[in-house]
Amino acid sequence: MFGGAAGFYFLTQRDRTPGAQAPFDPEKKTVVVLGSGWGATSLLSTLDTKDYNVVVISPKNYFLFTPLLPSVAVGTLNPRSIIQPTRYITRHKSRNVSVIEAEATDVDPTNKTVTFTDNSEIKGATSSTSIKYDYLVYAVGAEVQTFNIPGVKEHAVFMKELQDAERMQRGFMDCLETAAFPGQLPEEVDRLLHMVVVGGGPTGVELSGELHNFLEDDLKSWYPELAGKVKITLVEALPSVLPMFSKQLISYTESTFKESKIDILTKTMVKEVKERSVVLQMPDKSIKEVPCGLVVWAAGNKGRKITQDLMAKLPADQTNRRGITVDDSLRMKGAEDIFSIGDCTATSYAPTAQVASQQGAYLARVLHQLAKKDRLEKELKNLESLDVEGDQEKARVQKEIAVTRSKISKIQPKPFHYSHQGTLAYIGSEKAIADLPFMNGNIASGGVATFLFWRSAYLSTLFSLRNRTLVATDWLKVKLFGRDVSRE
Amino acid sequence: MFGGAAGFYFLTQRDRTPGAQAPFDPEKKTVVVLGSGWGATSLLSTLDTKDYNVVVISPKNYFLFTPLLPSVAVGTLNPRSIIQPTRYITRHKSRNVSVIEAEATDVDPTNKTVTFTDNSEIKGATSSTSIKYDYLVYAVGAEVQTFNIPGVKEHAVFMKELQDAERMQRGFMDCLETAAFPGQLPEEVDRLLHMVVVGGGPTGVELSGELHNFLEDDLKSWYPELAGKVKITLVEALPSVLPMFSKQLISYTESTFKESKIDILTKTMVKEVKERSVVLQMPDKSIKEVPCGLVVWAAGNKGRKITQDLMAKLPADQTNRRGITVDDSLRMKGAEDIFSIGDCTATSYAPTAQVASQQGAYLARVLHQLAKKDRLEKELKNLESLDVEGDQEKARVQKEIAVTRSKISKIQPKPFHYSHQGTLAYIGSEKAIADLPFMNGNIASGGVATFLFWRSAYLSTLFSLRNRTLVATDWLKVKLFGRDVSRE
Repeated sequence: MFGGAAGFYFLTQRDRTPGAQAPFDPEKKTVVVLGSGWGATSLLSTLDTKDYNVVVISPKNYFLFTPLLPSVAVGTLNPRSIIQPTRYITRHKSRNVSVIEAEATDVDPTNKTVTFTDNSEIKGATSSTSIKYDYLVYAVGAEVQTFNIPGVKEHAVFMKELQDAERMQRGFMDCLETAAFPGQLPEEVDRLLHMVVVGGGPTGVELSGELHNFLEDDLKSWYPELAGKVKITLVEALPSVLPMFSKQLISYTESTFKESKIDILTKTMVKEVKERSVVLQMPDKSIKEVPCGLVVWAAGNKGRKITQDLMAKLPADQTNRRGITVDDSLRMKGAEDIFSIGDCTATSYAPTAQVASQQGAYLARVLHQLAKKDRLEKELKNLESLDVEGDQEKARVQKEIAVTRSKISKIQPKPFHYSHQGTLAYIGSEKAIADLPFMNGNIASGGVATFLFWRSAYLSTLFSLRNRTLVATDWLKVKLFGRDVSRE
Repeated sequence: MFGGAAGFYFLTQRDRTPGAQAPFDPEKKTVVVLGSGWGATSLLSTLDTKDYNVVVISPKNYFLFTPLLPSVAVGTLNPRSIIQPTRYITRHKSRNVSVIEAEATDVDPTNKTVTFTDNSEIKGATSSTSIKYDYLVYAVGAEVQTFNIPGVKEHAVFMKELQDAERMQRGFMDCLETAAFPGQLPEEVDRLLHMVVVGGGPTGVELSGELHNFLEDDLKSWYPELAGKVKITLVEALPSVLPMFSKQLISYTESTFKESKIDILTKTMVKEVKERSVVLQMPDKSIKEVPCGLVVWAAGNKGRKITQDLMAKLPADQTNRRGITVDDSLRMKGAEDIFSIGDCTATSYAPTAQVASQQGAYLARVLHQLAKKDRLEKELKNLESLDVEGDQEKARVQKEIAVTRSKISKIQPKPFHYSHQGTLAYIGSEKAIADLPFMNGNIASGGVATFLFWRSAYLSTLFSLRNRTLVATDWLKVKLFGRDVSRE
């Protein structure tokens, strides 16, 4: 036990005191990475920085473990437990990696430059500049899709960034406190305690489940007079929630939600979000205005403006409205030196963390191969320019040229292949569901055992020992002390 | 060990699942408590709710452990570790306590009413109302004193509420990232990395010390190119920092800061805070404009508007510009049914957490005595109105009346007496200083042992097992993983 603790301590200290790094090498090519999400972070973890000078540009200086956002939104997890500063990864690389907190505003595929701006509150004398790239890894992700439905931007809370989860928590506690205000009429109390979650994907389902837990575990203790009045409604435009799961797991989720008294409205569309209500178009096309305290919007993503702009510069090759078209090795069609991964691309894969993460790791290997090819091509040039004398010597060089050429021709990246590890979702009440590929079939599982599997799966895919420890500690804290009901 | 863990688990579960409470009793008097700080929280912990119907009104629904704010500002502690929802205390009382999240806007001492408003983002149909009190505990604290110095409100960060500490952390990380922006000129980098702390009291000193630790422990690992350039300046108008400490501890602090390269400027006044600089009047009266990235304002407090308004209603008795004048038993002069404690009062004591906390506990005992007096007075009235026959019976009642009168006259609250437990401050580099009263003298101590004492003293004065565990866990986390450098 003591040995274990000492080993753990050693690992943490090694992690937090990275050593000196090699400086930028003007002989090497420059890889610019746009983004710090699943794709970019996975790439950075795998990339061999001996091959390149690497520059990361992202408006966030950290990686966010998005699947756990709903847990932050109800206070099960501390916000800082699910983020990891990008420098924690880059500082452990053999060569210095430049991390720039800025928003990329323009990519010029002809001159191979990226323009970026410091959009944060505190700006310096220099707050906008451009940089040249040899290769660009374009991994900027997507932004929230509101389908131009009126009021969504103004009145709904999103569930995409860390700030969204914190806003949701504050809003929920605010609804409770406002409902507890003396003299609030019963109808108004019911309105304030009605939470509407829009979007039946994993985020919406997990958030509904977490809200239900918060109700059962904590609100009953601290707001006994209100807890029974909280109502959760999950709205989905498609005929069922969680369309990516197998039928039996969908039914399992639906029956669990029924027990938890979470209303699921499928085939229902949101027509407008108002300050105190949401306007719904029901399956029978009738229009219904439903009073509510809070609307959470988890209904999908769309491409960012910079992505649309970049695609518009390559009109012959980039025509898919869903996002960037890439080839088998994730190269952007029409721009040889740009690779694109994750939610900003339009591929046959779902826009998930799992796909982006595998693409990032794959691309790191491709870049390693390209570096090798570059080295060989330089060698070839040297050999070809050699001015040798004597037949024997000439023959030797000719042979070497042939060998190098053959080596170069053999460097052909294998096409990217996605290996599906399964789909997991937490549905509240200490239950989770999982579709896991097995042999050529599929295992569908739901319940408490799956919940424990969900937890351990998440713990192991979290990037660092630090995050793993923090999340596990948070889970233990909630078990011991419950969630915090302060409205911060 | 297993038994200890089981006992700990039992305690936590008992804390988080409070039972049913007695309802409000229309026969009892109503005590309205304004505030949820040190005074109000200490009162609520001690108050016997069998005696009264209690209503708490505060714009925060939680208690904030203010002395640890500087630790939150640099990420040593998680913000939620140092707050405790007010309901965690009130739900464990024998009678229901009504907790209202609202800002009191007016006190009417003649009609004995308080008016309050829901000032939060989400408002219900009812968001402003009044309530009648029999006794009012006025514990609204103070607000930040800017001395009307231009630019303080607009450009400086305060260090009073939880949001201030979070803003400070975001601002500091923003300065670092902006300094790291490519092409930033050396002069501008130096400006961005210059942190100015105004106010040489415990808050300013502890914040400077914590900043220095952050620099040494974390920034050197993650921003090696910038860490050496960060400069901290502490500005104080008086001739020395920490005037409440003994001379030797002041020198000890000054020499520790010198080693830590924290500049102390005493006898220096801030004349203006600008977006990118602070204008100082130096001891020789010369004016100097110093470029800086961030100004933290920890220079003192002043009365809130509601306090000034209340005092203006009692012009004969309330003339002290520093705050509310109270008598020996903390009764507001000129308003028999209002008691006032903490930073909103003007007493001979310093405006500290320790004083407010002792006043709160004292006042709870006074209120208990008053309830007893009320009961006896009711009994007396009953006895006096008895229409008895027979001399013997009449004599018995007369005797009982005399006994009751004597009992009533004996209920005289002892005047409030403050018992100073000592003064502690953390000065960074794992060092703390302490002035502790001992016999009739004083022990002054500084160093690492005092730091450990500081930590354990804080852990034991924190209110709940929950907070104690959370803070201890955070300290351990920082030891293991360091502080987080994400700019959230």
